[in-house]
Amino acid sequence: MSEPQGGADPTQFRCMAVEDGDDFVINGEKWFSSNARFASFLIVMAVTDPDASAHGRASMIVVPTDTPGVEIIRNVGVGDEPPGHGTHAYVRYTDVRVPKQNLLGPRGQGFAVAQTRLGGGRVHHAMRTVGQIKRAFDMMCQRALSRTTKGEMLADKQMVQEKIADSWIEMEAFRLLVLRTAWRIDQFNDYLKVRKDIAAIKTMMPKVYHDVVSRCIQIHGALGVSNELPLSGMLMGSYVMGIADGPTEVHKVTIARQVLRDYEASETLFPDYTLPNRRAAALALLGHEIEREVEAW
Amino acid sequence: MSEPQGGADPTQFRCMAVEDGDDFVINGEKWFSSNARFASFLIVMAVTDPDASAHGRASMIVVPTDTPGVEIIRNVGVGDEPPGHGTHAYVRYTDVRVPKQNLLGPRGQGFAVAQTRLGGGRVHHAMRTVGQIKRAFDMMCQRALSRTTKGEMLADKQMVQEKIADSWIEMEAFRLLVLRTAWRIDQFNDYLKVRKDIAAIKTMMPKVYHDVVSRCIQIHGALGVSNELPLSGMLMGSYVMGIADGPTEVHKVTIARQVLRDYEASETLFPDYTLPNRRAAALALLGHEIEREVEAW
Amino acid sequence: MSEPQGGADPTQFRCMAVEDGDDFVINGEKWFSSNARFASFLIVMAVTDPDASAHGRASMIVVPTDTPGVEIIRNVGVGDEPPGHGTHAYVRYTDVRVPKQNLLGPRGQGFAVAQTRLGGGRVHHAMRTVGQIKRAFDMMCQRALSRTTKGEMLADKQMVQEKIADSWIEMEAFRLLVLRTAWRIDQFNDYLKVRKDIAAIKTMMPKVYHDVVSRCIQIHGALGVSNELPLSGMLMGSYVMGIADGPTEVHKVTIARQVLRDYEASETLFPDYTLPNRRAAALALLGHEIEREVEAW
Amino acid sequence: MSEPQGGADPTQFRCMAVEDGDDFVINGEKWFSSNARFASFLIVMAVTDPDASAHGRASMIVVPTDTPGVEIIRNVGVGDEPPGHGTHAYVRYTDVRVPKQNLLGPRGQGFAVAQTRLGGGRVHHAMRTVGQIKRAFDMMCQRALSRTTKGEMLADKQMVQEKIADSWIEMEAFRLLVLRTAWRIDQFNDYLKVRKDIAAIKTMMPKVYHDVVSRCIQIHGALGVSNELPLSGMLMGSYVMGIADGPTEVHKVTIARQVLRDYEASETLFPDYTLPNRRAAALALLGHEIEREVEAW
Repeated sequence: MSEPQGGADPTQFRCMAVEDGDDFVINGEKWFSSNARFASFLIVMAVTDPDASAHGRASMIVVPTDTPGVEIIRNVGVGDEPPGHGTHAYVRYTDVRVPKQNLLGPRGQGFAVAQTRLGGGRVHHAMRTVGQIKRAFDMMCQRALSRTTKGEMLADKQMVQEKIADSWIEMEAFRLLVLRTAWRIDQFNDYLKVRKDIAAIKTMMPKVYHDVVSRCIQIHGALGVSNELPLSGMLMGSYVMGIADGPTEVHKVTIARQVLRDYEASETLFPDYTLPNRRAAALALLGHEIEREVEAW
Repeated sequence: MSEPQGGADPTQFRCMAVEDGDDFVINGEKWFSSNARFASFLIVMAVTDPDASAHGRASMIVVPTDTPGVEIIRNVGVGDEPPGHGTHAYVRYTDVRVPKQNLLGPRGQGFAVAQTRLGGGRVHHAMRTVGQIKRAFDMMCQRALSRTTKGEMLADKQMVQEKIADSWIEMEAFRLLVLRTAWRIDQFNDYLKVRKDIAAIKTMMPKVYHDVVSRCIQIHGALGVSNELPLSGMLMGSYVMGIADGPTEVHKVTIARQVLRDYEASETLFPDYTLPNRRAAALALLGHEIEREVEAW
Repeated sequence: MSEPQGGADPTQFRCMAVEDGDDFVINGEKWFSSNARFASFLIVMAVTDPDASAHGRASMIVVPTDTPGVEIIRNVGVGDEPPGHGTHAYVRYTDVRVPKQNLLGPRGQGFAVAQTRLGGGRVHHAMRTVGQIKRAFDMMCQRALSRTTKGEMLADKQMVQEKIADSWIEMEAFRLLVLRTAWRIDQFNDYLKVRKDIAAIKTMMPKVYHDVVSRCIQIHGALGVSNELPLSGMLMGSYVMGIADGPTEVHKVTIARQVLRDYEASETLFPDYTLPNRRAAALALLGHEIEREVEAW
Repeated sequence: MSEPQGGADPTQFRCMAVEDGDDFVINGEKWFSSNARFASFLIVMAVTDPDASAHGRASMIVVPTDTPGVEIIRNVGVGDEPPGHGTHAYVRYTDVRVPKQNLLGPRGQGFAVAQTRLGGGRVHHAMRTVGQIKRAFDMMCQRALSRTTKGEMLADKQMVQEKIADSWIEMEAFRLLVLRTAWRIDQFNDYLKVRKDIAAIKTMMPKVYHDVVSRCIQIHGALGVSNELPLSGMLMGSYVMGIADGPTEVHKVTIARQVLRDYEASETLFPDYTLPNRRAAALALLGHEIEREVEAW
């Protein structure tokens, strides 16, 4: 889906699939195609209807990897993977011809197809991330009990205790937000009703994951930054979680928009909830009773 | 309970109640006695058994406010309350004589009495704080829809959207942690089993409250820092929540200690979870099968 | 300058000054007019040229406080000041007539007049804030050495040491940024050349002030939130610093825009600084020498 | 210097060098010996005087790498380096015999030797890190001007502008603190007088480096987490900076202790700076003049 010049923004897509008889002929480039080097087929989001609306322009098309014109430009890696050994391919499609029946889902509905996966996918990511966070947390705790420095176990030092306490709170709060979101998905069976919830766990996920792994690294000292623990990979994973399936920034905007649907603008210059307005409203409602009480004194 | 020289640390208490016939004679000072100026009686935590263990030295004693020797030195206020109008008294007890039957609970068990209230009290504080946070959040959202600046509604500006999104996530995550804690209290009916949970919401409470109120102030501009909104009082309230019933630092230590009870130190120089150790363990377990597979190729 | 419906955004101003013979006749409302209740005259930013550009529409006009039609609606306070005792007036101007010669600076140049003060004003605010931060820092340090709890001086607890260390770093870093900005003002004698620097200290100021005061409150416990220390007022002051003379958000946008003037967009799909592009550039420059070396081996 | 069971804490060292005639015989293990695999000789900090004080027990000894008994157990890597290709060796010394003249510096003064390098070394680290931060900042700015998404350049989005503004402020504030520290080193020519300053830049360095690189990653999206930019290595570098030459926690304690040398405990129950005490002091100083003024009215 992603393209090198515009990421996952549909309005920026340039990879085109043009009808030619019973075929589509695809031209363009795709970026970060996961596992393309191992795959028998690729799923390409290509613009089939350039004049349609932003979200109705593209279709999903299945392309066998050995189709002439499919070229892996670079096998891009994540983090410090050595050049050429990565698994996120930069792929060029040059006059790639596939039969129209390779269409995946309705024509022009590529985004609907993608979104169907993305809603659930973000929750699955969050669930797996809860597990990763717990794993880092377990290492942190075991380490705190195993290492002595300056005459004291790490577990007895306040700066370590704070790391453990903050991590436990964040992990548990995140876990509960994921669980409620999953429960709401089951309750509503309608992704539109849980957009805010899904965007929220998508936003919280990279931060909690990052922060717990960071503290775990620090508590392990040189071992923490070494390749003898999986922490550097987990750390990079937290950044991937803040980018894959939509960057955090986009999800924050979604949350705000969804939340604000339940509110209305003030109609008055100073909103109802200012103290002068609340005092005036209270006096209008109860002022005569107060006066009666005062007179009766 | 608190004293000016040592806060709520029982080992620092100097206020003494000495037996004299059927009476206790109390001498000492107490600090931040809430609502003392309005009260008919005070509850004094005084050292009755100075030679007992730290948590068995003090008793709770009921003292009528008009007992000779009870003196309010200053009515201390919170935040910017004008001098003398506060409701947290600094009280001196000079040869204050009350009958022994004024003892509240068993002698020497003042802390047990206090803790009985504090566990539930912290949860109640957290529940009320959820409500206060929601109140600030509502103002923030209504404001974002009501104010236009630089040709755009606040609600359409990313820096405002981020404040709303972050606040919603923190509020909901906190709400869920409070709810689970309350549920666990009902399940276990044993405060010792929920110490970690209660310390966690006690720790999370002032931070979420503070952060949401801070953003609400900022979005309201001059109105936010003015005395026409209740926000400055709520802000100071968030600091009070980080100090009352034990400072955040103490609760973080509690969380760490409780969490660490479920872990054990590594017995080996490098813990089991290092990659070399996990690789060795995997090879010990499955190495012969891998070799067989390789040979069979 | 500020108005209740639009803060300090010039495009939102509605207070009008209409020419009538040798006079201006002013109608409108102004919000947060500092010290209006004590003042002999007010300086009103009023729209005199509604059809001019956004920053050329308004003029500064001196209005004696006793001019008929000047009415203080409310004396708004900051923080928890009691209603009516504040010093930031909400003022209404109804058919207020003053001679044209009361114009302060050229007609339509109200913003130029205001900005002349604001540049230097923000630096002065920052300088005074350095002093306030130092004051809070001093209290924090003295307290840490004076209070014992749980058998240990606060100064010996890591969570307190961290507060002191973080505060010192932030205070000193902020102090140096203020000093360099002042030095640059002297060097350049041109506010346009230090807009980035001034916006930076304006942005950093409320955050450092807030964070140091917050830690100082926490270390003082109940005394910290009480009205026996000036900390709650200083805390509210930090929020005022994030709003007065332009909110932090506006200054962040200014910094970004000023910084970005020194950069240019990439002309290529992948920027020059990607590793594949840098490798290719290095090979183009030095590849033949490398080949010669390899051959010579 | 570091050992696997106790990091860089001298009291934990177990690697011993025992005199035998004109030789030392070394037994023990060392961890994270940088570039040992390429080195002709190693510098070993070994306990020569086990009964001396904590900082007088160890000596620096030069050991040629090909001395019998020197064994690299594992070439440990940083981050995601493939196993065995790292450059931080885990080294075992078994009956390694070297002449006494290989002593580097005086016997028992291993720490003094190490500290001589560390003071300056930390400043050099900080200076190089200023450069790395600038490099990440430059990429961030160029990217913001080069990428369009959702119909807008990244540079025009507030969440991006905030990242640029925060990064500029932190980078410049850190740069100035490094510069002042270097200047003070030149002024004082005495590391003891700049311990606070050096610990401060050592503490600030990993945080600013981490935060700027993190934002740079996020703004680059998939490219940011890929191996086509150097950002993941720089990110891990920021964690290394928080551990190497002493973890951040140790340096924070140093700052606090150094700062607190300039303060004294309050001698009174309530410190001089409380408002009641300041009011009383002011009245004692000026009260009679105030009374005279009042009478004269």
